Amino acid sequence: MSVGIITVGNELLTGFIDDTNAAWLGRELTRIGLAPVWHLTIGDQVGAIQSALESIPDNTDDVIFTGGLGPTHDDITLRTISDYYNINLEFDELYWQELRARFERAGRVISEINRNQAVLPQGQTIIPNPIGSARGAIITKAQKRLFILPGVPPEMKAMYSASVVPLIKSALLPATVEVIRTTGIMESALAEKMGQIHNQYPTVTMAYLPRIIGVDIRLIGSDYGAVNKLKSHIQALVGKYIYGYGATDLEEVVGKILKDRGLTIATAESCTGGLIGHRLTEVPGSSDYLLGGIIAYSNAVKSEILGVKEETLIKYGAVSEETAIEMAEGVRKCLNSDIGVSTTGIAGPGGGTVTKPVGLVYCGFASEQGVRVRKFHFHFNRKMNKRLSSQVALNMIRLELENA
Amino acid sequence: MSVGIITVGNELLTGFIDDTNAAWLGRELTRIGLAPVWHLTIGDQVGAIQSALESIPDNTDDVIFTGGLGPTHDDITLRTISDYYNINLEFDELYWQELRARFERAGRVISEINRNQAVLPQGQTIIPNPIGSARGAIITKAQKRLFILPGVPPEMKAMYSASVVPLIKSALLPATVEVIRTTGIMESALAEKMGQIHNQYPTVTMAYLPRIIGVDIRLIGSDYGAVNKLKSHIQALVGKYIYGYGATDLEEVVGKILKDRGLTIATAESCTGGLIGHRLTEVPGSSDYLLGGIIAYSNAVKSEILGVKEETLIKYGAVSEETAIEMAEGVRKCLNSDIGVSTTGIAGPGGGTVTKPVGLVYCGFASEQGVRVRKFHFHFNRKMNKRLSSQVALNMIRLELENA
Repeated sequence: MSVGIITVGNELLTGFIDDTNAAWLGRELTRIGLAPVWHLTIGDQVGAIQSALESIPDNTDDVIFTGGLGPTHDDITLRTISDYYNINLEFDELYWQELRARFERAGRVISEINRNQAVLPQGQTIIPNPIGSARGAIITKAQKRLFILPGVPPEMKAMYSASVVPLIKSALLPATVEVIRTTGIMESALAEKMGQIHNQYPTVTMAYLPRIIGVDIRLIGSDYGAVNKLKSHIQALVGKYIYGYGATDLEEVVGKILKDRGLTIATAESCTGGLIGHRLTEVPGSSDYLLGGIIAYSNAVKSEILGVKEETLIKYGAVSEETAIEMAEGVRKCLNSDIGVSTTGIAGPGGGTVTKPVGLVYCGFASEQGVRVRKFHFHFNRKMNKRLSSQVALNMIRLELENA
Repeated sequence: MSVGIITVGNELLTGFIDDTNAAWLGRELTRIGLAPVWHLTIGDQVGAIQSALESIPDNTDDVIFTGGLGPTHDDITLRTISDYYNINLEFDELYWQELRARFERAGRVISEINRNQAVLPQGQTIIPNPIGSARGAIITKAQKRLFILPGVPPEMKAMYSASVVPLIKSALLPATVEVIRTTGIMESALAEKMGQIHNQYPTVTMAYLPRIIGVDIRLIGSDYGAVNKLKSHIQALVGKYIYGYGATDLEEVVGKILKDRGLTIATAESCTGGLIGHRLTEVPGSSDYLLGGIIAYSNAVKSEILGVKEETLIKYGAVSEETAIEMAEGVRKCLNSDIGVSTTGIAGPGGGTVTKPVGLVYCGFASEQGVRVRKFHFHFNRKMNKRLSSQVALNMIRLELENA
């Protein structure tokens, strides 16, 4: 069985609204072993919907439509699809009375334009809407089923779960989905280390999902054992780059280690400007281990609050190994934490020199055992350099604590 | 001229990665008067790409592909499209040498699999990649142009702007797109204040684009004068909620005011955990006005570093008007800045009480003229409450300085 998705709406095409419905449906369908094969977005025009219907591939069995079931003039999805298949749209007096009553109970006056929503494609199936006024429909034509749902996300989701899933699930085996999250290694180097191992697991689909701050490896397969075996195989090959699984972020992993060890942390951020603190505090309960931090953007803050020596700043500069070390040690002392972490670098676009180019970043890690520093050189724009700097700093905390 | 978009990637179809490329391209194309007519997402399979190529409507002139130009086994876009049109892929020794050198300069070893990226579709045009190793291509076939770009967003964006826009823009009448950015007012209240004014400008399409941290109002029209007149009309009605235009973020607006006035600022962040500092440092040149800040997550940091009185914390609590005031004053004194801004609140999900519920936030603003504090109550999850807190704090800086 093969499923496609068609989302209807000018706002989606012009990118002014994110197409969260398609992503949500993609995840839900994948979870029940029915990953969508294609997804088409079109505008609210009769011609666009007609072309879309014409273009449905022969090997697609089910199509889920979302959007264009509202009461206004640009809500034309159901009418256009019905016309295309020569299906009559009847006025549904019973539903109209029900809608009127529902509006009355809510203390609202129904508009005449809501009559557009009280229609019924003759001989087809209605999908009830438990939340709003826009009912959906299932149109079966040319050996395909079209599930027509509204675009308002809570309505679409409720109707998909109640009325679409039971019909499409039938006898399918659910898929196992595993996401392995890595950082500190580029996609090409990761792929080289892994070689052709995916060939040994023909029932599992493996994909690299590269982002600048790390590469995820996703495994999908209906054979749970095979997925798990490939996962162990990958752990054996590239384990040191793996920080977590599923949707777990690096800041959660770091938070869990700190909490489990009963350690507190403080940040001394220059080039990241507060981003490490922001990320650590995205995790509920982070006040258990994060005491706080110093955003040391100016040299005065570095020396006066963190206690970086004037001579260090003069001799080695604010972006140097020595300054990163004194910042990490300084914030640990200043906030009386178990661990101090620091970043100092040149985010860009300005401020670079030949010896200290844009993208040069030092991270410091101070603990009872002493202090370590690492040097990085990134080649992106300001915002990405900041994100990468926060990522390597968090990863440094993870590695230092895991190996301690 | 009519443009379509094809994004390639299993991870997009299965909803594991948001299709931000399509949304971004949708916005950019709309801005130059070329709103895309359709957008298709497909997986990384030869058959899927072939079907997509077959399904391109006759009336589409240009198609922008993104994704599948990486070095690994599932990166098959360029090869499959070339095969489909019987175009030879030559190995490009020159580019391979260049890539090797580029990797060397960055202190990295190139992988053999990167050879996959050093290919050249015979007789077609290469799109250089200023950031990464994946070059794009322009394939002209069957009176259509296919622009093939990588899926990594910064690379795709740079290549679109440098190499695609100049070719597709040609002789088109650009539409005027104006985005008016507001914050501090909900969509329904904004719409009520604006009434039916868009009816007075029949050539301009107006849309509300609500997000949690603010509502954008978008105007599109080919009549520049009419768009501008409606813009002035909106400014007259809801001007005090408008912080900027186009893609300008609130942190840029705040930065510009500080720079123009020659003022310095320091942050004292509790519930935002560094997010205000992070946002201020997203703007190039922010070191001109941001001295730094204190992330005062624990009470000890609030009292020992910021100088919030013990009795204030005991009597009123860490989340209180009084604490917000002393934090703003304290960071101003501690970092010797012109302005101090503070946040203290309960981001959630835990930590709320009947009198101090989740979402309660105080923002303080201290300057030579004294100190002000504002109270807010948000009703979202932890991450959104943090974002909204940073937004109201930045907006408070803007309003205080604009009215000063």
